[in-house]
Amino acid sequence: MSIDLQIARAATLKPIAEIAAGLCIGADDLEPYGRHIAKLSRDCVDGLAARPEGRLILVTAINPTAAGEGKTTTTIGLGDALNRIGRRTVVALREPSLGPVFGRKGGATGGGYAQVVPMERINLHFTGDFHAISAAHNLLSAMIDNQLYWGAGAGLDPRRISWRRVVDMNDRALRKVAVGLGDGKNGPARESGFDITVASEVMAILCLADGPADLVERLSRIVVGRNAAGQPVTAGDIEAAGAMAALLSEAILPNLVQTIGGTPALVHGGPFANIAHGCNSVIATRAALRLGEFCVTEAGFGADLGAEKFLNIKCRSAGLAPSAAVVVATVRALKLQGGVAKDALGPENVAAVEAGFANLARHIENLRGFGLPVLVAINGFTGDTAAEQATIVRLCAERGVEAHVCTHWADGGAGAEGLARAVAQAADAHSDPLGALTPTYPLDMPLAEKIRTIARTIYRAADVAFSGPAARDLARFEAEGAGGLPVCMARTPYSFSADETVFGAPSEFILPVEEVRLSAGAGFVVALCGSVNTMPGLPRVPAANHIALDAKGQISGLS
Amino acid sequence: MSIDLQIARAATLKPIAEIAAGLCIGADDLEPYGRHIAKLSRDCVDGLAARPEGRLILVTAINPTAAGEGKTTTTIGLGDALNRIGRRTVVALREPSLGPVFGRKGGATGGGYAQVVPMERINLHFTGDFHAISAAHNLLSAMIDNQLYWGAGAGLDPRRISWRRVVDMNDRALRKVAVGLGDGKNGPARESGFDITVASEVMAILCLADGPADLVERLSRIVVGRNAAGQPVTAGDIEAAGAMAALLSEAILPNLVQTIGGTPALVHGGPFANIAHGCNSVIATRAALRLGEFCVTEAGFGADLGAEKFLNIKCRSAGLAPSAAVVVATVRALKLQGGVAKDALGPENVAAVEAGFANLARHIENLRGFGLPVLVAINGFTGDTAAEQATIVRLCAERGVEAHVCTHWADGGAGAEGLARAVAQAADAHSDPLGALTPTYPLDMPLAEKIRTIARTIYRAADVAFSGPAARDLARFEAEGAGGLPVCMARTPYSFSADETVFGAPSEFILPVEEVRLSAGAGFVVALCGSVNTMPGLPRVPAANHIALDAKGQISGLS
Repeated sequence: MSIDLQIARAATLKPIAEIAAGLCIGADDLEPYGRHIAKLSRDCVDGLAARPEGRLILVTAINPTAAGEGKTTTTIGLGDALNRIGRRTVVALREPSLGPVFGRKGGATGGGYAQVVPMERINLHFTGDFHAISAAHNLLSAMIDNQLYWGAGAGLDPRRISWRRVVDMNDRALRKVAVGLGDGKNGPARESGFDITVASEVMAILCLADGPADLVERLSRIVVGRNAAGQPVTAGDIEAAGAMAALLSEAILPNLVQTIGGTPALVHGGPFANIAHGCNSVIATRAALRLGEFCVTEAGFGADLGAEKFLNIKCRSAGLAPSAAVVVATVRALKLQGGVAKDALGPENVAAVEAGFANLARHIENLRGFGLPVLVAINGFTGDTAAEQATIVRLCAERGVEAHVCTHWADGGAGAEGLARAVAQAADAHSDPLGALTPTYPLDMPLAEKIRTIARTIYRAADVAFSGPAARDLARFEAEGAGGLPVCMARTPYSFSADETVFGAPSEFILPVEEVRLSAGAGFVVALCGSVNTMPGLPRVPAANHIALDAKGQISGLS
Repeated sequence: MSIDLQIARAATLKPIAEIAAGLCIGADDLEPYGRHIAKLSRDCVDGLAARPEGRLILVTAINPTAAGEGKTTTTIGLGDALNRIGRRTVVALREPSLGPVFGRKGGATGGGYAQVVPMERINLHFTGDFHAISAAHNLLSAMIDNQLYWGAGAGLDPRRISWRRVVDMNDRALRKVAVGLGDGKNGPARESGFDITVASEVMAILCLADGPADLVERLSRIVVGRNAAGQPVTAGDIEAAGAMAALLSEAILPNLVQTIGGTPALVHGGPFANIAHGCNSVIATRAALRLGEFCVTEAGFGADLGAEKFLNIKCRSAGLAPSAAVVVATVRALKLQGGVAKDALGPENVAAVEAGFANLARHIENLRGFGLPVLVAINGFTGDTAAEQATIVRLCAERGVEAHVCTHWADGGAGAEGLARAVAQAADAHSDPLGALTPTYPLDMPLAEKIRTIARTIYRAADVAFSGPAARDLARFEAEGAGGLPVCMARTPYSFSADETVFGAPSEFILPVEEVRLSAGAGFVVALCGSVNTMPGLPRVPAANHIALDAKGQISGLS
């Protein structure tokens, strides 16, 4: 059994009603899913608006590497640590997708003594939110092909349908498919494909909607294709939005669980961090802010993608602003950023840490540009040397940034108390987070200019090169009234550039924007910089091969 | 709002823990899903084996017609009525599929005052069982194409893969698809398709497995295709069974809800009644038998298909035997069986009822052939005349069968008390149901002979005509050791024959068996008599068009 599953299973969980009671939530305000998971009821969510709002702490990271940074474990460890030092804290995380669970990466519930539990249930079906999203997405797909079959309705052009189907599974054979085969009996044959559920616009919508009415509105606005005249056809035109929303009526309610350390955790939503904005739901973040003095949350990928979108898309749309940002780095990852090969990370190498620090330094600079107090969490690994860790602390200090070595993986919240004190102090001192928050671009800037501004300000690109289709579509979106939307950058997470092999802090490169897509329901325009894979494949030996169920119904092999 | 949804929403539900307490199940033995739904825990299910076993009542019907028979409402009404007359009863039903909810038929929670509640949740995601089945099925699909992609593993021949994918949706464009397109990058391109989830062999397996170990065994035995040498390749060979079972670890536990009348109901599983056996899970039926003096359950379609498979497949495999069978009929449906057109059902027509009675009479005769006491429930409609209802009662009485007019749709359990008293009396008098149960065929009969025996004994066909491929595959299944399995007939439910337009009681026809399939995991050989559609389409105006969610999160438009 994996060490994470062993630790998770050995943990003593409190009944979820007890966790809720600690947040002054009564049993009537919970919809239990087993004894250790509950959704907050709609009345509960609505009632929280009357409570005072706590402070938001964003956990982000350097560009991810194969070495692993531990953003989720740090979010959990920091939450546990804040509670340990007497500051009531709720963590707000994304839900795991089944794809990675059965593929390569494993689950997404943290690790070691910094996990949310019950691990198996959260990693598998949890409260069914992703299944509901898949069903809502695929209902729209079926209704689209049904209109083509009957020749009825919104006049969709079968050659210009952009809405695909989804499945919460790594299944590369579904990336590109032909549907409607069968000698015309099953509707016009056409090319289409499947994405993984987390890449669905419905997922992004669920995470940005602020309630049932907004959910229906956003679903109605989804553009599924074009009619013969080239005009957009929406889910509202297909008459699908109501039934889709009905399928999501429970899924938009936040899920309450606990960390091994007993910290309440709202785990809700999980959009892709490339073609979507990559953070948990607005509804859960808002709820967590009303339930704790602090809400600690994370954004996907590194700060260049995740934090940028968290701040420019989610926070702006929801009127949120963090009181501090924590950038997670590791000695091993900085060595990789400094040019060391993956198989040479063992020996002490202070020079490589210094070289790789350029990556961390730029993320710090960018986050400060948003008007945020910044701290660094050095997620300690057993192979790190004191000199390597001290180097990061020193280089941060030279820039006026506090860096703290954390050992929450091994020690739980006790291993992140230093970080917690520093975070609390910085956040307490940041008196007007909403006033201080400085977006990268104003919403009334033209779309192409927004993309260019992000590329120059955050990535340090010399310029952007738009492909012909991208330039044409941006102009069309402007003409159709979508010019006021924020942009959602879809790019490799491994580099500031569009080349995933370029580590450190590249600059003066040209960022290619090959394609743009309108996510009118989510409320952003996606800019694809290079090819973005929205349906992962399984590795040669999938993790699924080693997962089992014993005669007593116990699962093994999850990691 | 539909009348059914209005009635369901006006009902006062007891907390599910109170319903459970009435069955001597403690709160610790429940896994709640909201306040009105719970799964029985594994410990609870295992512990029930120590309790005495009640009596099983099967509700079945004449051949279904467009007029509607009300098998589910009768099952619920009879359960309520048995409780009203002081006999502790639990009903065991199938779970609804999302396909019909959004398509044409509507949900499957009964109707009027004979419903299981909460109606919206049971009809939509319920406890996620069907989503779990879809995920387990599609994980196997992804692992199959992944082996083709990597050229690894079990040596599958890409041209001979029979395992498809599933989605719980009516989506005709997915009936026949080409997967793996994309210039070879996404694995070998090949033709395949999607079935609706209820048609998945995983669904049939879930409903026949008696626990986690049997579940894993059955999943391992699923035949997904053939290797280059023509030998069967199984899910076990693909190393998928353990992960599939892990996905199903909660789904195999029965779901406890209540009827509007307060009767406990286990609603669990829902396999297609054509290519599968069409009844709720063995685990739930067994649990219900230990929880009540009576368990009332239903089988899919008419008695020729549903009851035959319930008795020859499910009961035989699980060691169950009913103490009585109730055949549901309506005046309207018997008129249709008697040759009246659908738009001429209004006026009184005793002669048509007499003519259509031939259909009911044959079902009665068949059920008696199984060694069962038989009763008839006349599900009353407001347009029925006293003379028409009396005709059915009289014709039944001539055959020694008690028929009772029931009004549970309008009156709840009070409307089925007469039926309940008769059922209880008949069941009490049937002292050795297992000893009396006479299957249609022995398991050691050759497969072709089993099919012929069902066709002659139950359908009254003159003979069976096997297609060349069907005859060849039956011989192959015998050679490969599957000859001892029962057969699962897949045929139109609307007629005793394979011609869905022939009502009444046809005989001396030839039944064509065009194709046979091995469901080695479920444990039966499917005989397809004519084309069987395993992926329904949506109608021109789907029910989904009229489903909505309001600003308070309330759903409307479900029926």
